[in-house]
Amino acid sequence: MTTGVRRRMGVDERRQQLIGVALELFSQRSPDEVSIDEIASAAGISRPLVYHYFPGKLSLYEAALKRAADDLAGRFVEPREGPLGARLLRVMRRYFDFVDEHGPGFSALMRGGPAVGSTTTNALIDAVRQAAYVQILSHLGVTDPPARLELVVRSWISLAESTALIWLDGRRIPRRELEVQLVHDFAALAAVSAAHDEEMGALLRGALADEPADGPFTDLVGRLVALAS
Amino acid sequence: MTTGVRRRMGVDERRQQLIGVALELFSQRSPDEVSIDEIASAAGISRPLVYHYFPGKLSLYEAALKRAADDLAGRFVEPREGPLGARLLRVMRRYFDFVDEHGPGFSALMRGGPAVGSTTTNALIDAVRQAAYVQILSHLGVTDPPARLELVVRSWISLAESTALIWLDGRRIPRRELEVQLVHDFAALAAVSAAHDEEMGALLRGALADEPADGPFTDLVGRLVALAS
Repeated sequence: MTTGVRRRMGVDERRQQLIGVALELFSQRSPDEVSIDEIASAAGISRPLVYHYFPGKLSLYEAALKRAADDLAGRFVEPREGPLGARLLRVMRRYFDFVDEHGPGFSALMRGGPAVGSTTTNALIDAVRQAAYVQILSHLGVTDPPARLELVVRSWISLAESTALIWLDGRRIPRRELEVQLVHDFAALAAVSAAHDEEMGALLRGALADEPADGPFTDLVGRLVALAS
Repeated sequence: MTTGVRRRMGVDERRQQLIGVALELFSQRSPDEVSIDEIASAAGISRPLVYHYFPGKLSLYEAALKRAADDLAGRFVEPREGPLGARLLRVMRRYFDFVDEHGPGFSALMRGGPAVGSTTTNALIDAVRQAAYVQILSHLGVTDPPARLELVVRSWISLAESTALIWLDGRRIPRRELEVQLVHDFAALAAVSAAHDEEMGALLRGALADEPADGPFTDLVGRLVALAS
């Protein structure tokens, strides 16, 4: 049924195209600096037509953010197989892939971008954090986390965010090193909590029971003992 | 020169009074829920008079936030005497005092309060983080921090923020435990970084050289070694 002339897109198809174009521009430069004119031009349509699909830049920004949030949450999903340290390391690699791909947009969002304070934006950010939290608990095999475990997991998630933001600001440390370091940071924060609380100690010993001698957790303990001696 | 009738306040004095009244209300309930009428009533003046001193609630909120930020930054100042772990622990106690006193306002601000996204608010939050960063470097005796030290210090500051926020949400863990835990977290994150980088290792060994056998750092290493064995 192609006629040789440019096919007219349906409403949903056009919206999806605009979201994709906007997300790519918002990922390359701070969203503050991207105009609707630019988005229209990159999509090959007129400025008024963009407004036909999205009432304003904020709604297009939020739609792009929704797609990015779904993408990121999807990268947290990891098969429940093999040692925990190796699983977390694979997730960290995909997390830094995402941060690398969306650098300027990620920084602007987390440091206070155009839509910060909007209810939609905050809800999207919280949903991604919650997705990370749920994944980690599921890999630990915990359904009813004690308060100290919730604290360790949620505060580590915020540590991973700030580590990524600091990395983006100049990229002065190789990301491969930071990916491993965040796995070690998780183990270290859990170990500190376990050092204060017997329930956390039992949880951590259970989680580490299947760690291989060459895994990242075992690697960390060896390094810490060497440093302390 | 008192006349027995209520003395009329000068402009600056009245502004300072309103800031104090507003800060107290913003500290007890989320600033979203505090009205100008309430502030006027608590200050014993009329609503229009409040607007005479502050053009709107945002400007009064920002002034209250400025005072709270200065207060918090002041609590980071600690004499450069004695072991580092004990110094950091004293700062953590004062930090939790502040968080405790300003709970609802602190939560609302850090989770996305009425003025989040405002340039003034973001600048005030950044200034407090920077004050914490500068204090820590100064206690470590470092003037030109390598990238990995900057990462450890700044990401630990964000960990301290998220730990305080999670604590405020239900207060399910005793704050005294979290104050010590954050000191241990700092040591643990520094140790992870030192395990990856020789320069960080030398820095950490220097910092720990003066730690007493009963200090929080030594305590942590003992607990970690016990846990690993």
